[in-house]
Amino acid sequence: MFKTKLLIGTVLLAASLGTMAAEWQALPGKAPEPADNPTTPAKVELGKMLYHDTRLSANGVLSCNSCHNVMNGGEDNRSGSIGVKDQRGGRSAPTVWNSAFNSVQFWDGRAPSLEAQAKGPVTNPIEMGMKSWDDVVARLKAMPGYQAAFTAAFGPDSISADNAAKAIAAYERTLITPNSPYDKYVGGDKSALTEQQARGMQTFADVGCVSCHSGPAFNGPTLPEGTGFYQKFPANDNGALEAMYNFSADLGRQAETKNAADAHLFKVPTLRNIALTAPYFHNGKVQNLEDAVKIMAKLQLNKDLTAEQSADIVAFLNGLTGEFPKIEMPRLPAYANKAFPAE
Amino acid sequence: MFKTKLLIGTVLLAASLGTMAAEWQALPGKAPEPADNPTTPAKVELGKMLYHDTRLSANGVLSCNSCHNVMNGGEDNRSGSIGVKDQRGGRSAPTVWNSAFNSVQFWDGRAPSLEAQAKGPVTNPIEMGMKSWDDVVARLKAMPGYQAAFTAAFGPDSISADNAAKAIAAYERTLITPNSPYDKYVGGDKSALTEQQARGMQTFADVGCVSCHSGPAFNGPTLPEGTGFYQKFPANDNGALEAMYNFSADLGRQAETKNAADAHLFKVPTLRNIALTAPYFHNGKVQNLEDAVKIMAKLQLNKDLTAEQSADIVAFLNGLTGEFPKIEMPRLPAYANKAFPAE
Repeated sequence: MFKTKLLIGTVLLAASLGTMAAEWQALPGKAPEPADNPTTPAKVELGKMLYHDTRLSANGVLSCNSCHNVMNGGEDNRSGSIGVKDQRGGRSAPTVWNSAFNSVQFWDGRAPSLEAQAKGPVTNPIEMGMKSWDDVVARLKAMPGYQAAFTAAFGPDSISADNAAKAIAAYERTLITPNSPYDKYVGGDKSALTEQQARGMQTFADVGCVSCHSGPAFNGPTLPEGTGFYQKFPANDNGALEAMYNFSADLGRQAETKNAADAHLFKVPTLRNIALTAPYFHNGKVQNLEDAVKIMAKLQLNKDLTAEQSADIVAFLNGLTGEFPKIEMPRLPAYANKAFPAE
Repeated sequence: MFKTKLLIGTVLLAASLGTMAAEWQALPGKAPEPADNPTTPAKVELGKMLYHDTRLSANGVLSCNSCHNVMNGGEDNRSGSIGVKDQRGGRSAPTVWNSAFNSVQFWDGRAPSLEAQAKGPVTNPIEMGMKSWDDVVARLKAMPGYQAAFTAAFGPDSISADNAAKAIAAYERTLITPNSPYDKYVGGDKSALTEQQARGMQTFADVGCVSCHSGPAFNGPTLPEGTGFYQKFPANDNGALEAMYNFSADLGRQAETKNAADAHLFKVPTLRNIALTAPYFHNGKVQNLEDAVKIMAKLQLNKDLTAEQSADIVAFLNGLTGEFPKIEMPRLPAYANKAFPAE
């Protein structure tokens, strides 16, 4: 059962007190899972196959892994991903690593779960370009290897979009990176962070970053699955930064809900592995992490950081790079003696 | 030292005698390696990183694995691969599996080694699209993770195109699939092939397929690295088949050597894992393996197979699907806190 812990009150109190010690939490060793999709080895294996299978795209070249690459930081280091027919995406692909600790998915939170998110890019015409999940299911059903894998995970005659999404989500729930230097530090090993990193950790709290970037995943309070934690970005107007980075072109959550009150609201992303996931912000316009830190302080907290403060925070953020699990490549089923259909 | 065995004489004799028992050979458990690039674990690990790293392409989406996918049959099941800017390749990507047993690479044999082949697609404007290997080397040098991996494989300050190619080739030499049902059969397990498959194996010899598709890799005699085994395709004219499949549009080796005597010569490809690598022939125009078998008999040997003969040969060819090794995903180095450069 997904645990509900409403910490918003605590976080707001901590933010207002400024220098109060933040509630530092290590990343759990296991991601939460919903009651209607418990993680099993068979689901994980099937999900891994689907996640890495380029036949879930119209051109047979793109898979989930293309934009959310588990061989590195879990995304593609781009401001906009490349989709079928060389089209470009509108927002920077978020990392898959530790996405299991987000209560909603996508920058605008429009997917209430990993299962819901998994379906989106496959049929997005500028991403993987399949006309519908019916076409995906037809491809999967044509492959005896997938028949067997779905049966193992969900029982006979179980190939469906919903089950494919459940399997992919189950795989994603294994994509977590605990045991960062920060985790070891809060676990008691005071040598795990350098002096500068520890100083940066305190600065991160004192300046107020932790008022939003809190919790084990540094993405806000732990909320029920489907309930997002959003912040307005930018929170403050700044003509110079807007001219340079054009953050306000994107309406964020309002584009999804059509509610003017949701203008420029974005889901607060995780900071884990942030050193690996340049470029930064929803539009991926900021290449450098230290610039991103200074911009956040200015736009969100209306503060100008000193050179020492920003350097220390960056050092601390580097301490959020976790341990990556070894992953065996899936063996993908043969396409039953046929060429790839979408010539 | 790469062993030299000139079997051309033997093969021609066998072909002329027709029904002579063919020399059936199992796949060795280890691929041959050249004296100037012995396989080492550090090279294999580096080669695996490079092979799967999409930053070796201009758009950051394509890697060697995109078109030669080790998670399945070692290629992309396409008549022409998709390159940068959605361009299409001219010939069907050959499988990487067991390519270490080819004495030359590419359909036209223009690369005398795996090392030479590895460099080609990276700078091919319709494939991975890098302007030059200098640009690739610059990207690699910017990543501390690659500095370390090259040092482990080749010593300090060793990042170069040649060493990258050597590492990729070393990784490819681990991509072999011994222990197919056929291998077990010729190793003594007479139950390893079905009755139909064993009958198909005899038919494969009797009809004359083995006159070219001989040896442990079914790609001809074992020749010194750099010396290719070529055949004219089509060997015989057939208006109906040419109208349907347009095989003769491709000049094969002549396009490379500019020598009219080389018109329509192609390297004889392996038949191992052929059941997984539709579509067939250099232009990938034939989807179905049984059609391919009948076409080969007609165009190369001027024979019309009976329905039983072609079905039996197909059954035998399915017995050439080998055991695939478990492969751990490489952990790719961070791009040093930067976005992907080619926006």
